[in-house]
Amino acid sequence: MEVLVPFSTDRPKSRLSAVLDPDERKAFARAMLRDVLDAVRAADGDPRVLATGPVEADLACPVDVDERPLTDAVNAALDARVDDSPEDATPVAVVMADLALATPEALRELFAAGREADVAIAPGRGGGTNAFVASHPAFRVDYHGASYLDHRRIAAEVGASVAVVDSHRLATDVDEPADLAELLIHAEADEGSGGRAARWLRDAGFALDATEGRVGVERE
Amino acid sequence: MEVLVPFSTDRPKSRLSAVLDPDERKAFARAMLRDVLDAVRAADGDPRVLATGPVEADLACPVDVDERPLTDAVNAALDARVDDSPEDATPVAVVMADLALATPEALRELFAAGREADVAIAPGRGGGTNAFVASHPAFRVDYHGASYLDHRRIAAEVGASVAVVDSHRLATDVDEPADLAELLIHAEADEGSGGRAARWLRDAGFALDATEGRVGVERE
Repeated sequence: MEVLVPFSTDRPKSRLSAVLDPDERKAFARAMLRDVLDAVRAADGDPRVLATGPVEADLACPVDVDERPLTDAVNAALDARVDDSPEDATPVAVVMADLALATPEALRELFAAGREADVAIAPGRGGGTNAFVASHPAFRVDYHGASYLDHRRIAAEVGASVAVVDSHRLATDVDEPADLAELLIHAEADEGSGGRAARWLRDAGFALDATEGRVGVERE
Repeated sequence: MEVLVPFSTDRPKSRLSAVLDPDERKAFARAMLRDVLDAVRAADGDPRVLATGPVEADLACPVDVDERPLTDAVNAALDARVDDSPEDATPVAVVMADLALATPEALRELFAAGREADVAIAPGRGGGTNAFVASHPAFRVDYHGASYLDHRRIAAEVGASVAVVDSHRLATDVDEPADLAELLIHAEADEGSGGRAARWLRDAGFALDATEGRVGVERE
């Protein structure tokens, strides 16, 4: 399955500005992107990065540059791919580049759901759409606001069947400082593996801080 | 499968004190408990509430009262249940009472994982242990701090095999104001069903607020 991975090259991860400077945010975003691409490949997906500008790194996969906002870029990509008749529509997946916790197992479940239903969605915490698979020719995205609810509505309007993928790993987009804890927790639980993004955080001095209710992060 | 549901009757949901007064927190906590019990029953589990004091409501299931802290009460319950030889150990589940998003499907997956592995854990966001199933006679809990990591360590120390259940719904314990949004999002996505807790919130004037990055809640 072709898997588009939208990636912002200009000002990535601005909501992490309280804990990471601009260069760090770029490096961290790139580490997460690589983790996502690895997981997609391990789940037998064919990744293709949909970047807002040139990516200064060898990602070992095609990179399409589209400067437009996320919604427009993804819809243009869907136009080019799922414009066939419903009968022979090929599913295409869109997986966000900040799902550093994504495992091949979780992605496989998403891809399988997207082969059964016209649209399969993995909702993000806070109402986002962290990943989806669409084969319905009329389904298009709108990432503004509570996009998960909008995408459910859009799918209903065009008569597309919907499957919802219930995954904590796919629900966790790494956007805010509290999300960094999630990355370190699961990297530590699975014995320090955890991919490039978790290693990058540890190398940058981040560690878990269990002194308050939910576990957070502290930096040396 | 017997499913213990720990429930605090004295000062439930204190981290929601910024948005709910004490009586509201009690009523909301009870609505969530009822949702969890419904989901457990629909997943063919036999729920039993493990309360810190008498529950003033007919929950249509047994209620054991144990005034001790959560860790001690759960360990006493495990002592009484999984103290057999490993060969004929019967799995017992412990599911937190604030998992108002729990679906029968997610719980069925947890129970199935707990029949295969010695310990099956559904981690919560922030490193908690929102639900688990244990059949290993030596596994005991410690809910302080990052309990998911502690429980992985404890399981490894006693030689228990571990399965991790990846579920956004089981990962979402409703503890803080931002978690209320999660409850309303998924209730709205599934066409206003969403159980008693979501209805309670709507009746109390809460609605989704999509004006910032992640969707939050506002109250009339």
